[in-house]
Amino acid sequence: MKYPNGSNKKSNTLTTYGNRGMSLESDLNVTNEYYNSIGKAVIHKKPTCVTIHKVDYLGGRDAIIKEARFNIPSTTDYNGIYNGYYIDFEAKETNNTTSFPLQNIHIHQLEHLRNIIKHGGIGFLIVRFSKLNETYYLDGEHLFCFIDTSKRKSIPYSYFKEKGILIKEGLRPRLDYLKIVEVNCEKNKN
Amino acid sequence: MKYPNGSNKKSNTLTTYGNRGMSLESDLNVTNEYYNSIGKAVIHKKPTCVTIHKVDYLGGRDAIIKEARFNIPSTTDYNGIYNGYYIDFEAKETNNTTSFPLQNIHIHQLEHLRNIIKHGGIGFLIVRFSKLNETYYLDGEHLFCFIDTSKRKSIPYSYFKEKGILIKEGLRPRLDYLKIVEVNCEKNKN
Repeated sequence: MKYPNGSNKKSNTLTTYGNRGMSLESDLNVTNEYYNSIGKAVIHKKPTCVTIHKVDYLGGRDAIIKEARFNIPSTTDYNGIYNGYYIDFEAKETNNTTSFPLQNIHIHQLEHLRNIIKHGGIGFLIVRFSKLNETYYLDGEHLFCFIDTSKRKSIPYSYFKEKGILIKEGLRPRLDYLKIVEVNCEKNKN
Repeated sequence: MKYPNGSNKKSNTLTTYGNRGMSLESDLNVTNEYYNSIGKAVIHKKPTCVTIHKVDYLGGRDAIIKEARFNIPSTTDYNGIYNGYYIDFEAKETNNTTSFPLQNIHIHQLEHLRNIIKHGGIGFLIVRFSKLNETYYLDGEHLFCFIDTSKRKSIPYSYFKEKGILIKEGLRPRLDYLKIVEVNCEKNKN
């Protein structure tokens, strides 16, 4: 979709929730584009799910949506394939500095992630503590271990420090989260 | 999203293009729901990709999209996990009775599917010849063998008869395409 200035503006749905997640999303998008370009993995962000109420038809295949609403997502935002493995994750930013509130993730998304792991896929969470400028990888095993054993409604920052892995920021790839996946896969093989 | 009659109406984006694909889509959705419910596989249709231009904020997290446009898809519509395998496919209906026009699939979608296979995923095409009431599974290998060796812009019906596999219709699951995936996986193991 070309804008008047010629740029290919991406869906700005995340701005709806006060810009939350925008820069992590953008970092992950360039990372995934890079992975794809070097043939390392094919991982995409799913489009935001909307229910369309009104459409104006402009002729041919062109149409403009005049009314739609955001749906509650039933799956995570990212999935794809790496080295034959099915990869599935959710990515969130938080302004909190002491914990990550679990209400940031819909219950359906958590159940989806749990299901993926049961089926042999690699499921994890990427959480950015924006104010600390730190982005963590928390694998599904540790995520569900916390959820299933704790009554807390947020995962403490200390849990990410202890059980998660800090994702190093770089130029290319921007956030090399697959390096962590790779190390975990090797570990599980041995 | 609850409608006034209380039903959970799904996105009706496909009606934009003259109802094409609607009934195959609905058959695949109930099939995937069934697979999910019995713990066989987790496969979902991706939401239709739209670029949002205008949003009205209704307070809290609620918002209504006032203007958006359909994007050209860069991936296939369906993906997920089955028995540890990454599954990826595109599903199309045609009213043609003698061939399936390749222009029904975007070039990006074909490249995506080719990529998936290269990375060790299971990629295929499901095509319904609506007037013949026949739905075929065509695996990626045969799809790309045709594309790479033929100059034709449509795949003849006879090719589906010869190289594809007819998907039997049933009650539950409605279209048991994973049975074919299963057989193919076993074949490749031996």
